Amino acid sequence: MKGFGVFEKGKVGWMEKADPVCGPRDAIARPIAIAPCSSDVHSAYELEGEHLKNRILGHECIGEIIEVGSEVKDFKVGDRVIIPAVTPTWTHPDIQDSYHQHAGGLLTGINFSSYEDGTFADKIKIRSADMNLALLPDDISLEAACMIPDMMTTGFLGPELAEVKFGDTVLVAGIGPVGLMAVAGSKLMGAGKLIAIGTRPNCVELAKEYGATDIVSYRDGDIAEQIMDLTNGKGVDAAIVAGGDLDTFYKCIAVTKPGGNIANLNVFTEISSFNIPVDAIASFVGHKTLKGGLCPGGRKRMERLLSMVQAGRVDPSKLVTQKFYGFEAIEDAFNLMVDKPRDLIKPVVLID
Amino acid sequence: MKGFGVFEKGKVGWMEKADPVCGPRDAIARPIAIAPCSSDVHSAYELEGEHLKNRILGHECIGEIIEVGSEVKDFKVGDRVIIPAVTPTWTHPDIQDSYHQHAGGLLTGINFSSYEDGTFADKIKIRSADMNLALLPDDISLEAACMIPDMMTTGFLGPELAEVKFGDTVLVAGIGPVGLMAVAGSKLMGAGKLIAIGTRPNCVELAKEYGATDIVSYRDGDIAEQIMDLTNGKGVDAAIVAGGDLDTFYKCIAVTKPGGNIANLNVFTEISSFNIPVDAIASFVGHKTLKGGLCPGGRKRMERLLSMVQAGRVDPSKLVTQKFYGFEAIEDAFNLMVDKPRDLIKPVVLID
Amino acid sequence: MKGFGVFEKGKVGWMEKADPVCGPRDAIARPIAIAPCSSDVHSAYELEGEHLKNRILGHECIGEIIEVGSEVKDFKVGDRVIIPAVTPTWTHPDIQDSYHQHAGGLLTGINFSSYEDGTFADKIKIRSADMNLALLPDDISLEAACMIPDMMTTGFLGPELAEVKFGDTVLVAGIGPVGLMAVAGSKLMGAGKLIAIGTRPNCVELAKEYGATDIVSYRDGDIAEQIMDLTNGKGVDAAIVAGGDLDTFYKCIAVTKPGGNIANLNVFTEISSFNIPVDAIASFVGHKTLKGGLCPGGRKRMERLLSMVQAGRVDPSKLVTQKFYGFEAIEDAFNLMVDKPRDLIKPVVLID
Amino acid sequence: MKGFGVFEKGKVGWMEKADPVCGPRDAIARPIAIAPCSSDVHSAYELEGEHLKNRILGHECIGEIIEVGSEVKDFKVGDRVIIPAVTPTWTHPDIQDSYHQHAGGLLTGINFSSYEDGTFADKIKIRSADMNLALLPDDISLEAACMIPDMMTTGFLGPELAEVKFGDTVLVAGIGPVGLMAVAGSKLMGAGKLIAIGTRPNCVELAKEYGATDIVSYRDGDIAEQIMDLTNGKGVDAAIVAGGDLDTFYKCIAVTKPGGNIANLNVFTEISSFNIPVDAIASFVGHKTLKGGLCPGGRKRMERLLSMVQAGRVDPSKLVTQKFYGFEAIEDAFNLMVDKPRDLIKPVVLID
Repeated sequence: MKGFGVFEKGKVGWMEKADPVCGPRDAIARPIAIAPCSSDVHSAYELEGEHLKNRILGHECIGEIIEVGSEVKDFKVGDRVIIPAVTPTWTHPDIQDSYHQHAGGLLTGINFSSYEDGTFADKIKIRSADMNLALLPDDISLEAACMIPDMMTTGFLGPELAEVKFGDTVLVAGIGPVGLMAVAGSKLMGAGKLIAIGTRPNCVELAKEYGATDIVSYRDGDIAEQIMDLTNGKGVDAAIVAGGDLDTFYKCIAVTKPGGNIANLNVFTEISSFNIPVDAIASFVGHKTLKGGLCPGGRKRMERLLSMVQAGRVDPSKLVTQKFYGFEAIEDAFNLMVDKPRDLIKPVVLID
Repeated sequence: MKGFGVFEKGKVGWMEKADPVCGPRDAIARPIAIAPCSSDVHSAYELEGEHLKNRILGHECIGEIIEVGSEVKDFKVGDRVIIPAVTPTWTHPDIQDSYHQHAGGLLTGINFSSYEDGTFADKIKIRSADMNLALLPDDISLEAACMIPDMMTTGFLGPELAEVKFGDTVLVAGIGPVGLMAVAGSKLMGAGKLIAIGTRPNCVELAKEYGATDIVSYRDGDIAEQIMDLTNGKGVDAAIVAGGDLDTFYKCIAVTKPGGNIANLNVFTEISSFNIPVDAIASFVGHKTLKGGLCPGGRKRMERLLSMVQAGRVDPSKLVTQKFYGFEAIEDAFNLMVDKPRDLIKPVVLID
Repeated sequence: MKGFGVFEKGKVGWMEKADPVCGPRDAIARPIAIAPCSSDVHSAYELEGEHLKNRILGHECIGEIIEVGSEVKDFKVGDRVIIPAVTPTWTHPDIQDSYHQHAGGLLTGINFSSYEDGTFADKIKIRSADMNLALLPDDISLEAACMIPDMMTTGFLGPELAEVKFGDTVLVAGIGPVGLMAVAGSKLMGAGKLIAIGTRPNCVELAKEYGATDIVSYRDGDIAEQIMDLTNGKGVDAAIVAGGDLDTFYKCIAVTKPGGNIANLNVFTEISSFNIPVDAIASFVGHKTLKGGLCPGGRKRMERLLSMVQAGRVDPSKLVTQKFYGFEAIEDAFNLMVDKPRDLIKPVVLID
Repeated sequence: MKGFGVFEKGKVGWMEKADPVCGPRDAIARPIAIAPCSSDVHSAYELEGEHLKNRILGHECIGEIIEVGSEVKDFKVGDRVIIPAVTPTWTHPDIQDSYHQHAGGLLTGINFSSYEDGTFADKIKIRSADMNLALLPDDISLEAACMIPDMMTTGFLGPELAEVKFGDTVLVAGIGPVGLMAVAGSKLMGAGKLIAIGTRPNCVELAKEYGATDIVSYRDGDIAEQIMDLTNGKGVDAAIVAGGDLDTFYKCIAVTKPGGNIANLNVFTEISSFNIPVDAIASFVGHKTLKGGLCPGGRKRMERLLSMVQAGRVDPSKLVTQKFYGFEAIEDAFNLMVDKPRDLIKPVVLID
């Protein structure tokens, strides 16, 4: 098979590898829509490790099944499917009382690009097909569908972790694609006032469309002060951190009321510790809770998000600002993600 | 003071009573918008008891404050306020570990028309003003505001009890005003497919506008069969019962999946027992949970719902199908609620 | 293989059947300790259906592994294991967002005696061995261990469903083996006052030893009145129904406070509906919640309960009032369960 | 009145002050048992602020009522009562949707020694008597009772925050009086293996008596390594931090499994930030949750804990290692707390 990946830290390109072998519960798919993610860039240029040598990248994908294992019951060749970014084995006992993302060890649910090759390939192996894949309904566009495997499930995890409830005042810091989905998800968990922190015009516009009632910009002064002003000095009930730097993170903690949850979705690299100010976290006596997590994967999660898109609760295709065509264009889409032009929210590669 | 109420079971009309006395933590308001409720009709014609003799009815009201007690801190004469249907004393220890609706005894939070006179009066006493009232913002219409004290808080309790989560398939039985708010609330807790049971055209249209994806009508055959068909034989994740008869209630239980919640908001009168079929509830081994509750009241609940209306999450004024003008029109509005014409969803009386 | 089971409704005895075939993820065990359950009696004499023709009964068992499938990783021949009563396949997507007991359909987790032969056999096949079995530590007696697969996991489900918390006043109706474990489990979830309903002297004594603070007997008058007296007229925070008739069930609902949970573990047979009095359930406006469920199974549940027994939190071997020796004695133990002498709590058959 | 307190930072002694005035909902009590707390020492010697000038200290107390306000319903002169360390006003709307400890602002529930004088006085004013006091039953010793207002409610908050469930492996770091109560509370929420970190012999002995299954000592090497060894490399399900330094806190985070809760009860002084290692918290993608909180107060909490002591679930009087007699002995007891001899767990002053 052929794929685009990382040869070693900092060196990316196309590579030929042996075709994946389809185990009895696995499926092999060819990609029909792919999106690169900033964590692909991260894997290529910032991380190191044996698992990132000659490794095909990619984990956001819609595929068409070209082979299924003998024990697969619910999928057949030709089916168009959502492939989640997180595909656990589902056969480790840890799934019985903890998060599937970590069944058998921290982050084991991230199979693509970590334990096996990713989705920037012409042949993609999905383990535990019946447990991980979701059939793509005809009434959903490829652009919308391709936002579900990671952007939507990650962004929606934000208000889930933050336990947003009816009438909460919610803060979302960062309105890139994950933050924007956190805004949409917060609205759909009942947020009242919904403050988003961001600056780029198309992101701000989309944040409002997804449900933000107020926008705070770093350019208008201290963000904590702005948030306290917007909340009459009371602060927010829940905060979701989906962008910004460490200072933003700490300020999100500080402006959260006693008893509130702060859900961090942001991956901070090249730091060794989180230096949380004692005042921000109220010495841990203020019932402020710090949380974070990896996006939920697996079949049911995909089906649940699909049903929300089908019901018209949210249109994640609005995240797609750039489209590419053809398998070879994965390289261009990836490079765009490296460059991150100011008008980029999310690119998609559509493949016949 | 003057008010419209019940002299004795079945006999309603205007009555003169002594003016209410404003205690140190109380407030007195005059009504500026009032809505009659089917439970007012219920209190007038079906219930009995000493507390329903010469009792002024009504519990949905927007008021203007005309007097405040000496200990009231946050409200002053002239303030326009939302008066919740449920106004607990908040000074009973039960509020520390159970539902405020029942602090000190079952349903003690229903003060209006039960322990004291209701809101169909020119002078309305609200106990614990700082704890129960919410200031009405200028950007909300009286029609919308007047749906908050009972219709919205009751309807939204449905998905809260049912614990709706992202992508749930949700059933709402009955699309009168409470059921319609349950539809809107279910959408705002993350429902995917949202099936509503109902027949009246304007209710069906509004149910769709509030988020229903599918409509089931009693006229099209067995509702349980229709729901099983719509869910590919799987049933629903959560059911909210806001209308229909006992058979509807039992069918809602039956079509709920193992592990699902059935939240009953419907008040069944003139029955002595719920005869739940063993099969419907799966002999209680199927992890189906039966719940029900009284609408939450108090200041914070009103403020939370207000913030959702202000944020544009839902427009409850769409429930208002008939408007009346002037204090005396309370009688007409009440009689309309007695007659329940087919095009009625909810009437409002607007008072200068 | 040989086993004790039901030929057809009402006709029980020993039967010879073809040896079970060990699939790649399965294990075959021989029994070293077995307990009959009143639901075995129920299956033999009250239920009907094709699945109960020539069916070996039994679902409470400690075994020694005599064969493992090629994909089994964590167990080997000779291992002594706890075999849970509920052994789901774990490979149905339903486990991703609902109860494993019902993955793929209501009660599918009950494999033994339903879909396949039970544990009253000299060869017992356990599906998904790595996901269902738990290694028996050396420091736990066979008698204690044999109470874990059903009695302890079912009894402990009671306070879990009832959501017992620190200082709750808890009611447990029925102090057979499941009710006694519900008493022990309630104490271990923080119950303060813990009222048990029962009469048999050894059960009463054991209930007190497991944590009951008060005993109510049917012989001393109306149980609801006794409970209200014991709680100063306030009722209980949570009720667990593990015995008694329908009247007991309804009274448990009636004496539960507004906002409380009633968890039913009792299997009522030969009825077609639960006729819950409107007053008992407070017309469903009192926030009383009715719940029920099937005992959790699978490996992690067994390991969790084992760790509690190892830590000395509870000694379930005290339930064992009669011991039998040798494989053939299964018949005697079963018959004892049919007869239910007054001093019986739970019999165990120990097999070399 | 007379009391022992702080004149200014570092200067303590007896002081005469005007008698407290009993408001309509207040009560005045004289102390019959008092315990000094390490946070009294902290207030005297480490903190600063206007509220700690000429301020009577103390917040753990059993009293006898000598005066009640006109609106107090449930208490009368002569009643012996538990006075909780946290006594909110209960009349701020924040109690309707957040923690009573912070109703109206962070830590406002700490009235004693902060906003008003504390309990080291011959006259103690308790605000909102009906909502804050709990009647002391005759069958509970003063020593046991005096551990409830702070030690027991704070320690039991640990497993509540950590959400301990049946069979969890729980870690409690620090086995001073709060940590010991966290051990007892963890057992009573269902912990299986329960690892306590500590060294002092009498504390270690009591930790085992309260439910610890394993003890880890700083003297035996790296605590994280010891804990990983004790858990076969898996780590703990939940951790409660009730002692130790920052390094201990961070190691507790590190040894908690993905998906686990870390509940901090320890008050770290003279630091400006918590520098949590990225690896310990798994970059916030491992679903580890950091929590903390102030002990719950108020009447119902006290009554709940009382009912647990009455039921024999735990005997908090075992914490009391030193007894003093007479009001004047408060000074000696306080000084003992300053000196913290190695055999001290908790002193109590008994007053006729």
